[in-house]
Amino acid sequence: MPDYDYDFLVIGSGPAGQKGAIQAAKVNRRVALIERRRHLGGASINTGTIPSKTIREAVVYLTGLAQRGIYGQDYRLKDEIEIGDLAMRTRQVVERERAVIRDQLLRNHVVLFEGAAVFADPHTLVVTDATGAERRLTAEAILIATGSEPSHPQDVEFDGKTILDSDDIVLRLDHIPRTLVVVGAGVIGIEFASMFAALGTKVTVVDGRREMLDFCDSEIVEALRFYLRDLGMMFRFGEVVTKVEHREGGTLTTLASGKQIAAEAVFYSAGRQGATGGLALANAGLEADKRGRIEVDERYRTATEHVYAAGDVIGFPSLASTSAEQGRLAAADACGLEVHPSTNLPFGVYSIPEIGFVGQTEAQLTDAAVPYEVGVSYYRELARGQILGDTHGLVKLLVSPGDRKLLGVHAIGANATEVVHVGQAVMGLGGTVDFLVESVFNYPTLAEAYKVAALDALNKLRAVGQLVT
Amino acid sequence: MPDYDYDFLVIGSGPAGQKGAIQAAKVNRRVALIERRRHLGGASINTGTIPSKTIREAVVYLTGLAQRGIYGQDYRLKDEIEIGDLAMRTRQVVERERAVIRDQLLRNHVVLFEGAAVFADPHTLVVTDATGAERRLTAEAILIATGSEPSHPQDVEFDGKTILDSDDIVLRLDHIPRTLVVVGAGVIGIEFASMFAALGTKVTVVDGRREMLDFCDSEIVEALRFYLRDLGMMFRFGEVVTKVEHREGGTLTTLASGKQIAAEAVFYSAGRQGATGGLALANAGLEADKRGRIEVDERYRTATEHVYAAGDVIGFPSLASTSAEQGRLAAADACGLEVHPSTNLPFGVYSIPEIGFVGQTEAQLTDAAVPYEVGVSYYRELARGQILGDTHGLVKLLVSPGDRKLLGVHAIGANATEVVHVGQAVMGLGGTVDFLVESVFNYPTLAEAYKVAALDALNKLRAVGQLVT
Repeated sequence: MPDYDYDFLVIGSGPAGQKGAIQAAKVNRRVALIERRRHLGGASINTGTIPSKTIREAVVYLTGLAQRGIYGQDYRLKDEIEIGDLAMRTRQVVERERAVIRDQLLRNHVVLFEGAAVFADPHTLVVTDATGAERRLTAEAILIATGSEPSHPQDVEFDGKTILDSDDIVLRLDHIPRTLVVVGAGVIGIEFASMFAALGTKVTVVDGRREMLDFCDSEIVEALRFYLRDLGMMFRFGEVVTKVEHREGGTLTTLASGKQIAAEAVFYSAGRQGATGGLALANAGLEADKRGRIEVDERYRTATEHVYAAGDVIGFPSLASTSAEQGRLAAADACGLEVHPSTNLPFGVYSIPEIGFVGQTEAQLTDAAVPYEVGVSYYRELARGQILGDTHGLVKLLVSPGDRKLLGVHAIGANATEVVHVGQAVMGLGGTVDFLVESVFNYPTLAEAYKVAALDALNKLRAVGQLVT
Repeated sequence: MPDYDYDFLVIGSGPAGQKGAIQAAKVNRRVALIERRRHLGGASINTGTIPSKTIREAVVYLTGLAQRGIYGQDYRLKDEIEIGDLAMRTRQVVERERAVIRDQLLRNHVVLFEGAAVFADPHTLVVTDATGAERRLTAEAILIATGSEPSHPQDVEFDGKTILDSDDIVLRLDHIPRTLVVVGAGVIGIEFASMFAALGTKVTVVDGRREMLDFCDSEIVEALRFYLRDLGMMFRFGEVVTKVEHREGGTLTTLASGKQIAAEAVFYSAGRQGATGGLALANAGLEADKRGRIEVDERYRTATEHVYAAGDVIGFPSLASTSAEQGRLAAADACGLEVHPSTNLPFGVYSIPEIGFVGQTEAQLTDAAVPYEVGVSYYRELARGQILGDTHGLVKLLVSPGDRKLLGVHAIGANATEVVHVGQAVMGLGGTVDFLVESVFNYPTLAEAYKVAALDALNKLRAVGQLVT
């Protein structure tokens, strides 16, 4: 066996890279991690998840949006919210998280290199730092976790001020526009669209597809769309954007249907592409697809067996939580460990209101001809929902009529991304809807929704049973 | 069998009475419920749980307390908070909850009677309404769920204005005192003490015991005490109150040790007693203890077999959630149903910060000589904790070293009463700490604390294993 510098070499310090490096280090492998930017954490910490969720939290608090169920529709905590109000919080959290990651990596004896990595051969990377100095690193196994970057189509005149990508919107936006076009109704598009709508911006969302967030349960998406419309949001689905350009006092977005939308700013969020351009993948016997993504098998191995890829660079779902898990599983496989991949990954969309789910959707079950019964609980029927003033929320359980186990849990409303984890634990451990009915929950909490929804499902199952027998 | 008016007769419409009545009605029993007050819901809805939790939510929001980790120690959303700010929210929620309960009972065909119930014999109650009209009701089984009322010792000059019991503090307090003595460091005492401290009141808590909340894990209580002191709260433990009296401009509380404490108001919260005084229990062959409580067996049966008792009237823990479960179990037993009592009941203390737990405490396990390992996660190490600005929170898992199952889950901090339900589900379904390590949680959420704490526990177990083998 050739003598490599490292057992495991990771490119990129986002969630997939971090967890991959730490997993390998935990089992005493010699691990190094290469990050081309000055700051660790990838898009998740620096331009993506963390900044956007921190801004979201500030928006919900400062707009008093969550309190309008209580203090009335006109309630606002702060009349004029400035970008500065949002940025202060973000800076603090981002810096803290960068420090946490550095500390974790160093504590686990992961060697850090700053620079751009290029494959020289399937086991060798050349790292060029900011001074131009080169360093060759060899490794037995390599994990590509370089993430993604916003796509920049030619017909969109990005300028970082009024025509923005998702990096710009976090880093460079200097005021809250009165009108905004959001191109792309994916997770990032909808999350920011709902934040701006909450801030009072008149938002128009354009997407070529007929539906948004089609991996979520359609009843939940429908509820979200209803509440977003309630915030004054306008949707243009099934519409293709042909051009986004500057004009006096703002921007003009032109659609294939001939419509034109004038707005102070445009957030172009139609897709991200794998950050693989500079890696010289061919030297590792690899190639990326036309969106820069790398194909992997179920063990996260690329076409070159000892080279793994995980996170945004392999595509959907591109969530920090799942990317971290992919990185961990890739490293475990490279180290010959036996690991059990989580079968029930939760999904979180931090729109306003937020969405959390785990398991199958109604559409998926119907397509697969798996019968199910539905149990629903509305937050407004719970004491905690009343106390929070959340009139939007609901928890929906999809239950297998045979063994009464959970097939899916879907939530929208306050803390939905948290609430879903109770259902996730029950699903993961094979619990039934009866378990939830017999559970006692703290009063008043949102978790009571599980008991109410479970009772609803059981009552329906009984009704069917009575008719059948 | 004699011909009774009803199969199941319930006295009291608090959580125990409601759920008992509904359980019996669900299996087609003829059920009636007697409530002596005009409003349904008992102390839980009208003077206890719901008003206090609604006020708490308003206090946390209006003081901006949760935001001080972010906006600085001096941050306050509203400088002068009035009782009116708190009362508006409360009224709305209370009225809504009363309506929900009435609706639930009627929907389940529970017959409602308004009036005071007195036992005529073990199967007969005489109900006297506000006009003095009497009605005799007979039933095969009876559930006493009359709840509790604040104790009024002779040496305390209650006046509902400056010397208050817990009903007064919700219903009659007309301004926020600058200084307050809280007598009794039980759940109610500590919940209100922390609310007033958050509002800027200088609070002194006095209790004859050496410790507070001794059913909670002592590390969690220690953390709570630390943060309450941080809010300017003063504790006088092991001190017996001998007298509470009025004096010019406020009150004077005298302790057995000779100390005297002057304060604008006193909240006397040293105990509640079972509301059994007017029931003529002797006519049912029963008697209450000196605190008005009724003794029951593990099936919630009193000394008279067909008469059940549940909720506050039987004593600890006197939480709405557990009382509801007791009522349900009592009714199920009376109806001859087989039910599985929940073995892992969660506890919630809505102090600021709040506490949630399920299972055993460290002290209980140590007393029982059950070995355990501890895994801890601090909110401040989680991205969500940073975003929320919660520097107090933690989740602690107590893990059995043999089968690696959870023996207890203890949380303090933002949403602790919610967060604990993930651990409760895992415990209830026999999941291990390995399950939590392998789980993927939405990012960023507080639920991630489970993964971090589980990893911490596993690392410690490994360290011990390495030393042992």
